Amino acid sequence: MAAQAEAAVRAQAETVRRLKQDKADPDEGTRDYGPKQMAIRERVFSAIISCFKRHGAEVIDTPVFELKETLTGKYGEDSKLIYDLKDQGGELLSLRYDLTVPFARYLAMNKITNIKRYHIAKVYRRDNPAMTRGRYREFYQCDFDIAGQFDPMIPDAECLKIVHEILSDLQLGDFVIKVNDRRILDGMFAVCGVPDSKFRTICSSVDKLDKVPWEEVRSEMVGEKGLSPEAADRIGEYVQLHGGLDLIEQLLQDPKLSQNKLAKEGLSDMKLLFEYLTLFGITGKISFDLSLARGLDYYTGVIFEAVLLQQENEHVEELVGVGSVAGGGRYDGLVGMFDPKGRKVPCVGVSIGIERIFSILEQRLEASEEKIRTTETQVLVASAQKKLLEERLKLISELWDAGIKAEMLYKKNPKLLNQLQYCEDTGIPLVAIVGEQELKDGVVKLRIVATREEVNIRRESLVEEIRTRTSQP
Amino acid sequence: MAAQAEAAVRAQAETVRRLKQDKADPDEGTRDYGPKQMAIRERVFSAIISCFKRHGAEVIDTPVFELKETLTGKYGEDSKLIYDLKDQGGELLSLRYDLTVPFARYLAMNKITNIKRYHIAKVYRRDNPAMTRGRYREFYQCDFDIAGQFDPMIPDAECLKIVHEILSDLQLGDFVIKVNDRRILDGMFAVCGVPDSKFRTICSSVDKLDKVPWEEVRSEMVGEKGLSPEAADRIGEYVQLHGGLDLIEQLLQDPKLSQNKLAKEGLSDMKLLFEYLTLFGITGKISFDLSLARGLDYYTGVIFEAVLLQQENEHVEELVGVGSVAGGGRYDGLVGMFDPKGRKVPCVGVSIGIERIFSILEQRLEASEEKIRTTETQVLVASAQKKLLEERLKLISELWDAGIKAEMLYKKNPKLLNQLQYCEDTGIPLVAIVGEQELKDGVVKLRIVATREEVNIRRESLVEEIRTRTSQP
Repeated sequence: MAAQAEAAVRAQAETVRRLKQDKADPDEGTRDYGPKQMAIRERVFSAIISCFKRHGAEVIDTPVFELKETLTGKYGEDSKLIYDLKDQGGELLSLRYDLTVPFARYLAMNKITNIKRYHIAKVYRRDNPAMTRGRYREFYQCDFDIAGQFDPMIPDAECLKIVHEILSDLQLGDFVIKVNDRRILDGMFAVCGVPDSKFRTICSSVDKLDKVPWEEVRSEMVGEKGLSPEAADRIGEYVQLHGGLDLIEQLLQDPKLSQNKLAKEGLSDMKLLFEYLTLFGITGKISFDLSLARGLDYYTGVIFEAVLLQQENEHVEELVGVGSVAGGGRYDGLVGMFDPKGRKVPCVGVSIGIERIFSILEQRLEASEEKIRTTETQVLVASAQKKLLEERLKLISELWDAGIKAEMLYKKNPKLLNQLQYCEDTGIPLVAIVGEQELKDGVVKLRIVATREEVNIRRESLVEEIRTRTSQP
Repeated sequence: MAAQAEAAVRAQAETVRRLKQDKADPDEGTRDYGPKQMAIRERVFSAIISCFKRHGAEVIDTPVFELKETLTGKYGEDSKLIYDLKDQGGELLSLRYDLTVPFARYLAMNKITNIKRYHIAKVYRRDNPAMTRGRYREFYQCDFDIAGQFDPMIPDAECLKIVHEILSDLQLGDFVIKVNDRRILDGMFAVCGVPDSKFRTICSSVDKLDKVPWEEVRSEMVGEKGLSPEAADRIGEYVQLHGGLDLIEQLLQDPKLSQNKLAKEGLSDMKLLFEYLTLFGITGKISFDLSLARGLDYYTGVIFEAVLLQQENEHVEELVGVGSVAGGGRYDGLVGMFDPKGRKVPCVGVSIGIERIFSILEQRLEASEEKIRTTETQVLVASAQKKLLEERLKLISELWDAGIKAEMLYKKNPKLLNQLQYCEDTGIPLVAIVGEQELKDGVVKLRIVATREEVNIRRESLVEEIRTRTSQP
């Protein structure tokens, strides 16, 4: 025990040293959520979950770690960002990197061929954090996926509808949802003369076009990745195209692309998708964009990404509000990788990147005058005189048992002023005051904090009175 | 890329091999939650969160991992059960073992001296799993804590009230909440002649009394831990005592205990606690039990543990329903361990062990006939004829935009029978059927699944009609 106590003291001293250096965060790139942040977070979750439920989704959950091998070979160049657990005996484990691979593992393990589910949970990436912009090493994903063999583009269109509903609902400002298809990309690479073996790596280069100009991407393709300048220039012409149904029609007539089987499939499906999105009335926010590539290896068809646009009145330092907030696509091969017989389950899904949305709403709230409540307490049980602790305990117990949200100060003899101040500070709308006279009369004095009005209420009517006065309109 | 692809194929082959051996679980001792388990889980969470909010708690969240040193020296003999992350550069990290230590670290880091918060999250222990009994390596804790300098026993009493409310609300059967105080235990050890240096280890032995008989515990004390037989026998007399106010009074008169300062303090506070619990009307389920010790190092005052009792009609194989489901106590020194100046913040809190409660409710639901719905869908948008996909898409989009929870089958031309069967299977109460005649007439045929009744509703009244027919009573 002595050695243990000593180790504890040493650890404590070390912790204290770090705290003094302000290095106390559990890890660079993670953060605690205090009550105010949690209140914002719960608003956002509530909007997202309502939308997922509106579309009939079930909910599942999976462990925070997976067998290391489950994650291997699914994320392309990003695999180096996976957190591993220490080998302490037993299986080798890693923290989940996204919710899509655990979902595919879950489907294969349970032989599920048909499900529409959502999953909201934290994922882990050993990335360079950029916390003011909402990029963390531990962050939430909110995923909605539809698994099953269905007629083309119907579930895909619903995923885009969901993104549109959520971003509209959260009022984050103007946005655009870029759409493309891995088959169109691959067909395009083929007709531009990219060798098969270079498809994925050239795709990674294209993926950078939202951050760097074409010239830089081109020189990476030619210089680092050894693509011929002619092929790069042909790609360059395509990836600068974006538009709607008219662009799809134009490409379906393109003499080269229309000869490629994959591209043609992709374009026909894209046309069908746009027809469905027109019926949903959301094409105004959708852009078919040939530069959209997305990094992950597992996509096989439609891919998409929602991007917040800069507001006209926005300053550069507010650019947290700009960038990708949702992404997804079709991955028909992933479940088969976990099935002993390789049976495929086609899937399409969307992931909402919640941290950037939190950052936007946090900053907006700080800038505004709105005071956010972090509790739902309806009434403070108080007393004006001394020696009434027992009466307060009796009354608050009655209120709790009747389902009323009630608090009291944990003091034997608190001052009335302190009790009223507590209500002001925390937004509690009512105070139930017990006093000797009230006890004799069988009443409780109910004070309305906002108006300072006070009314005597018969004790047996108090619960009903509190309910009426605090019921949501 | 070739090496990477090869590694992926190897990993996939290995995964497939394991799946064939039915060893596909992410880790022994963890589990996925499917939609049915999630529905139960959300019911339980909702009851617990309501209670926490009723008592005015705010909510916080912390990262799943902490600096390894933060956890060191806090858990006594259980420290060996902590999961470490692999050293991949950067800080050494460990998965959190409970929510109490992260809470204390959060308070010290943010210099918070006063908060009432709850926190619901997963914690990790490399323990021997016993999954049918609800013991996992990854499991939820639901913690409620009150931090701050207050008058004695008022927050402590509220924690016990909360446990009482939650266990009553969840209707898990009969239960008892055992209460003791570390100061009473330490005082008792002192008057029984246990040397100071053996307090903690003898306390660990006493902690086993809920699982093994006194004789075994005694022989551990004397044989393994070198306590004198006389001291052990004196302890033996005390730890077999349990009762209420009368036992407290009796011990306050005990010639030896009453001479010990710590024990006297503990007993006086215990008396005060029972007075408050009497005002709350819950002493019927509270037992002052001198054998309750609790394993963790950080407790300094009141400790408690709620235990489900065996039902009269219960078989031995149903014993999942028996055992500890909540525990907690006062830990006045923990926050100070993280503060550079050692400033203390007194805390008391309770942790609800949710996994055993899930197991009980899952088994109960399986035994019953109740069919649990896993979605909240109000209406299925269907068609009786072919070529109406576009009309279904238009209608469902209108319903979603009006906030109605609606689904459709992802088929171009689904059979009506299949659509009705889907409603039966998933519990959707209404079907909105579009047909050519209805479209001409500007109506939708609304079918009530339970009664097979069908009524034509004007399209502009459909949303209102669905709301009325699916509103909760």
